Amino acid sequence: MREFMDKDFLLTTEFARNLYHGYAAKMPIIDYHCHIPPREIAEDVRFSTITQVWLGADHYKWRQMRTNGVPERYITGDASDFEKFQKWAETLERAIGNPLYHWSHLELQRYFGIYEPLTGANAARIYEECNKKLQEPDMSARGLILKSNVKLLCTTDDPIDDLHWHRQIAADASFPVQVLPAFRPDNALSIEKDTFMDYMKKLGDVCNCVIDSVADVKKCLTERLEFFRANGCKVSDHGLPYVISDFCSEETADSILRKKLLGERISAYEVNLYMTHMLTYLGQEYHRLGFVMQLHYGVKRNNNRLMFQKTGADTGFDCIDSFTPSASLADFLDGLAVTEQLPKTILYSLNPIDNAAIGTIIGCFQDDSTVAKIQQGSAWWFNDNKTGMEDQMTSLANLGLLSNFIGMLTDSRSFLSYTRHEYFRRILCNLLGQWVENGEYPANLEFLGSVAQDIAFRNCNRYFDFQLSE
Amino acid sequence: MREFMDKDFLLTTEFARNLYHGYAAKMPIIDYHCHIPPREIAEDVRFSTITQVWLGADHYKWRQMRTNGVPERYITGDASDFEKFQKWAETLERAIGNPLYHWSHLELQRYFGIYEPLTGANAARIYEECNKKLQEPDMSARGLILKSNVKLLCTTDDPIDDLHWHRQIAADASFPVQVLPAFRPDNALSIEKDTFMDYMKKLGDVCNCVIDSVADVKKCLTERLEFFRANGCKVSDHGLPYVISDFCSEETADSILRKKLLGERISAYEVNLYMTHMLTYLGQEYHRLGFVMQLHYGVKRNNNRLMFQKTGADTGFDCIDSFTPSASLADFLDGLAVTEQLPKTILYSLNPIDNAAIGTIIGCFQDDSTVAKIQQGSAWWFNDNKTGMEDQMTSLANLGLLSNFIGMLTDSRSFLSYTRHEYFRRILCNLLGQWVENGEYPANLEFLGSVAQDIAFRNCNRYFDFQLSE
Amino acid sequence: MREFMDKDFLLTTEFARNLYHGYAAKMPIIDYHCHIPPREIAEDVRFSTITQVWLGADHYKWRQMRTNGVPERYITGDASDFEKFQKWAETLERAIGNPLYHWSHLELQRYFGIYEPLTGANAARIYEECNKKLQEPDMSARGLILKSNVKLLCTTDDPIDDLHWHRQIAADASFPVQVLPAFRPDNALSIEKDTFMDYMKKLGDVCNCVIDSVADVKKCLTERLEFFRANGCKVSDHGLPYVISDFCSEETADSILRKKLLGERISAYEVNLYMTHMLTYLGQEYHRLGFVMQLHYGVKRNNNRLMFQKTGADTGFDCIDSFTPSASLADFLDGLAVTEQLPKTILYSLNPIDNAAIGTIIGCFQDDSTVAKIQQGSAWWFNDNKTGMEDQMTSLANLGLLSNFIGMLTDSRSFLSYTRHEYFRRILCNLLGQWVENGEYPANLEFLGSVAQDIAFRNCNRYFDFQLSE
Repeated sequence: MREFMDKDFLLTTEFARNLYHGYAAKMPIIDYHCHIPPREIAEDVRFSTITQVWLGADHYKWRQMRTNGVPERYITGDASDFEKFQKWAETLERAIGNPLYHWSHLELQRYFGIYEPLTGANAARIYEECNKKLQEPDMSARGLILKSNVKLLCTTDDPIDDLHWHRQIAADASFPVQVLPAFRPDNALSIEKDTFMDYMKKLGDVCNCVIDSVADVKKCLTERLEFFRANGCKVSDHGLPYVISDFCSEETADSILRKKLLGERISAYEVNLYMTHMLTYLGQEYHRLGFVMQLHYGVKRNNNRLMFQKTGADTGFDCIDSFTPSASLADFLDGLAVTEQLPKTILYSLNPIDNAAIGTIIGCFQDDSTVAKIQQGSAWWFNDNKTGMEDQMTSLANLGLLSNFIGMLTDSRSFLSYTRHEYFRRILCNLLGQWVENGEYPANLEFLGSVAQDIAFRNCNRYFDFQLSE
Repeated sequence: MREFMDKDFLLTTEFARNLYHGYAAKMPIIDYHCHIPPREIAEDVRFSTITQVWLGADHYKWRQMRTNGVPERYITGDASDFEKFQKWAETLERAIGNPLYHWSHLELQRYFGIYEPLTGANAARIYEECNKKLQEPDMSARGLILKSNVKLLCTTDDPIDDLHWHRQIAADASFPVQVLPAFRPDNALSIEKDTFMDYMKKLGDVCNCVIDSVADVKKCLTERLEFFRANGCKVSDHGLPYVISDFCSEETADSILRKKLLGERISAYEVNLYMTHMLTYLGQEYHRLGFVMQLHYGVKRNNNRLMFQKTGADTGFDCIDSFTPSASLADFLDGLAVTEQLPKTILYSLNPIDNAAIGTIIGCFQDDSTVAKIQQGSAWWFNDNKTGMEDQMTSLANLGLLSNFIGMLTDSRSFLSYTRHEYFRRILCNLLGQWVENGEYPANLEFLGSVAQDIAFRNCNRYFDFQLSE
Repeated sequence: MREFMDKDFLLTTEFARNLYHGYAAKMPIIDYHCHIPPREIAEDVRFSTITQVWLGADHYKWRQMRTNGVPERYITGDASDFEKFQKWAETLERAIGNPLYHWSHLELQRYFGIYEPLTGANAARIYEECNKKLQEPDMSARGLILKSNVKLLCTTDDPIDDLHWHRQIAADASFPVQVLPAFRPDNALSIEKDTFMDYMKKLGDVCNCVIDSVADVKKCLTERLEFFRANGCKVSDHGLPYVISDFCSEETADSILRKKLLGERISAYEVNLYMTHMLTYLGQEYHRLGFVMQLHYGVKRNNNRLMFQKTGADTGFDCIDSFTPSASLADFLDGLAVTEQLPKTILYSLNPIDNAAIGTIIGCFQDDSTVAKIQQGSAWWFNDNKTGMEDQMTSLANLGLLSNFIGMLTDSRSFLSYTRHEYFRRILCNLLGQWVENGEYPANLEFLGSVAQDIAFRNCNRYFDFQLSE
């Protein structure tokens, strides 16, 4: 029997251990997609309790507490920080087989030096120990980033953001980590929403323009893209139910926009037409600017209306939307490729059954402008666990070139989540090691060590053109 | 090499063996969903041949015999009991990797003391041995239930059933096992069927009512629900192609019902409207009564019309229906949750690719009224095998709390199927044991033993409020 | 650690090694579905470079090169044979986990006696070595087939083909291998294509008929079917997006055909009606003639329009189409079964998530006319890798009888692909061996050796009625 989460955690073969400890573990971290508020880095925030950093905004943990029958008061309500932690510890103890069990204990080990399993029984003691540790000077936001060996991270930002915090961080020579914005224009595409007209007003205001046509929207978005680029941005992000491919002319998109601006009702099909048109335009702009386009899809959000009223969005009430037609995804990409304007693109579906379809689609749009230009993103959100990562990487290896994979991101709001990169690297090295141990690839440690380092750092550095040293 | 199906069958690690033998195996069985005719228990039926008990109504076995080229005469036809058994033995021998291979041999071992693999060559001898054994006093229906350590079972019953047999069993103090009805009102929802009007007549007759409106249907169903509850019922069951969410007012549902009662044609969409309306009403009633709502979906039935004419329903001609939109399932549940009337619910899809979607949906509707109030049902029907169970439990562990899972049911018509609970428990303990052996969870035998017992018995006992002792 | 691809490659247990080396490996090969041009066998073509045989038409390899950022000039362009091989070697080195890594090295081992892993560094040397080996007398098309122990292969042919090359091969007593045609009438069904009218003209010309009605098309196709049968054909093949079941009368189909022949636009639904009608007719004809019907579906082709213009079809730009409703597949088969005219049928979906649905559907249509009359085809195209095969066979074992599986085919254009049968047999034996090693099936080597031989050769020989000796 192996020890619980010791130094060889998840590394079941000798070759895997050599790959991880000798190669992958040494690489710095690029976290190219996360949801950390840049203000918290700019202000170098500190935390007085582990509850703040663990349970303040983590809807993964909230869902599990609800599943364990914990009342909402201890989740998003007014219970004390300790009470919430206690409830979480009791829940975690029952989370055998869940990634939170591993993530939480990796965080306790790496940031707090605690190697004991957290349980309801020892929660009070560990709570105190963590809180004490959090008072140490290097446990601030920046301290945690630095001790995680992060070289660069990308936040997620609305086009109208003034990037104040990013600029402030960039101007501060005392902090060597690059904190770059990512361009996420969902609000400008979500024409079905009641808030769309307000948003158009705001977008126009930022650009000193009254938005009255699709041409206006495009002009404003391009202006903001240029502004983001001037502030180091190299990547965009889109959240979609599925990748729509109902193409239309600018004239048609324009008539839909005008109806919406006049307060008229637009149909679901018109929503699709507008979204496809705008996403195609943005894709072309990303191509022109050298941006990477991220498409996250297969999500149905805010499924529990009652809880949405109480706790708002992103609080643990989202699920997989199983309607993700591969034909539409392929057609959308071709709509950009046919004019040679397909940007570097990363595809993430929330539904793990889409792995194979994505793997076959990305192979249709590769070209020699970038190695592995179209990527399947790392196992995302609900799939960000051992089996999910193994499945995604096995599928990618079967259908494409795993060696050219740009690897892991945290997608997180927490400064403790960088251990997920460690989690990923262990799983990656274990997968490579098993193939070698099984005689399916030659036992060339140096070469495969280099491949592991490529996937851990170098592919990403090259793909986004971050130009970081190792 | 491990011995064939010895006492450590499916238990590949030391920790798993300790979990199973020391904890899970000791727990009594609750079989909360099966298709045993209550009459057979009331009358304590006996079997003169193993063919009667094995091949009398088991469409799993029939399908395999057809796949082996066996003529229908030896399956549902007039061949002798021995001839049928012989053909089955020859088929089983070729069923490597199939759950029937394991189920059949577990049954031979546990009920007949036969540890030899059944083959075409030894079929005649084993046939005689089984038949002889079946003459022993404790091999009756009740004897088999008792020696399986079953404490409670739920049959599946139509709302118009008078529950005569259930009441007779309950009144018989000599039989300590609870045999409770489950409320399955498919006939009252299947407005698309030609038999619907007849059924409305029968339902009305039972309730001394002429059904003329949706209000009448609701009144009758509630009356029958109360009657079922008075007879110990705590659970309902629905069979659906997919979980529909085409909500409508009672007025609209009423107009559809009246069209149908007048013999007019109703559209597929009208069928969906009526079904959603009635299922929502029933869900609200289940909530009021504390019933558990089971939704079984993803099935296309009676696909072979010619065989349907010859052998009728439930004879082995059903398949997975791959149209099971997760969005509709989420919307249906929210339709109940939004008024705080969502009952305890168990979701079963026949399509194993729905595991992840279900796992993410149940997490959107948990609350503190019941621990793990919304459950993903155990791997169902075609998925009720080693890989199917492992996949379902791994998915549940990744996305929710496996520790709170209510576990196994037989879904069977046979008195020998209780070994499927053993099969499940072995697979469960093996899964838990592998995680421990792999260093992914602490080797706390007492705690995990208790978790294994929770999943084998206690969670279910608590969830349905059966109040059984261990 | 196991040696890289040694004689026990993929055989992880002793029992598996005994099954493979003692039983499966000895069986001859039937390759019942491939895309080899029969001319190349008739003319017994030779290859001057390994590039010709490896990279001349292999879109699997082309996709991987594009994914590695190789310019098209080195893929389908005018680079030299050596340059292309060099780029391929550099790509292959990075293909850890990909089936091409195994296929390529199996081919180097078996046909060229090269046991060294191919890399960018040794590419030049291995290139020369292979080219030299290709000059040996037995390295011609026929030589490669013979040394692969192939007894029979089926090519893929259009109904209007005159089968000139097949007849020439059959007449040549010096070549003992049967090379049979397969009937692939996609062009006669693809009424949505612009080329359809031309094809009708050609089909009519071959049959001395002016096609003016559905009856004419049927007459011509039946005439060609009879001609194919006279030349040894026993199998047909269809490529479909999904298995459509929009049934209509001949009158309706006729009106659609006439519209098309008059150059009028027909709707997508009319396309489906015509295709269902014609496929049903052909299915009935296959049944009458004892042909096996292969249905390949779940594909979206030519997704990259720009590359399609440059390199044409079948050059690496196809993907999975995730719209493959199981209900429609079941209904189509029932449309044939209801009149007792369902032929022997093999189902292949490109989407691996369809495994379970297919497994449940085939069980609905088995009968005693043929053992395992309805088959799930071997893991196809993008799924033709270790995990894909394991998944397909595990699913088939769970839901049907793996022992009755007709096994592997190459689906290839290359004379070196027969090692994929070896690959398949190793994976099969490993799967069987693991079950035995795990105590899930008795360790009966002789019986399971016979099962392995059935799946490797005998089931296929019997199913198609090829009447080959072993």
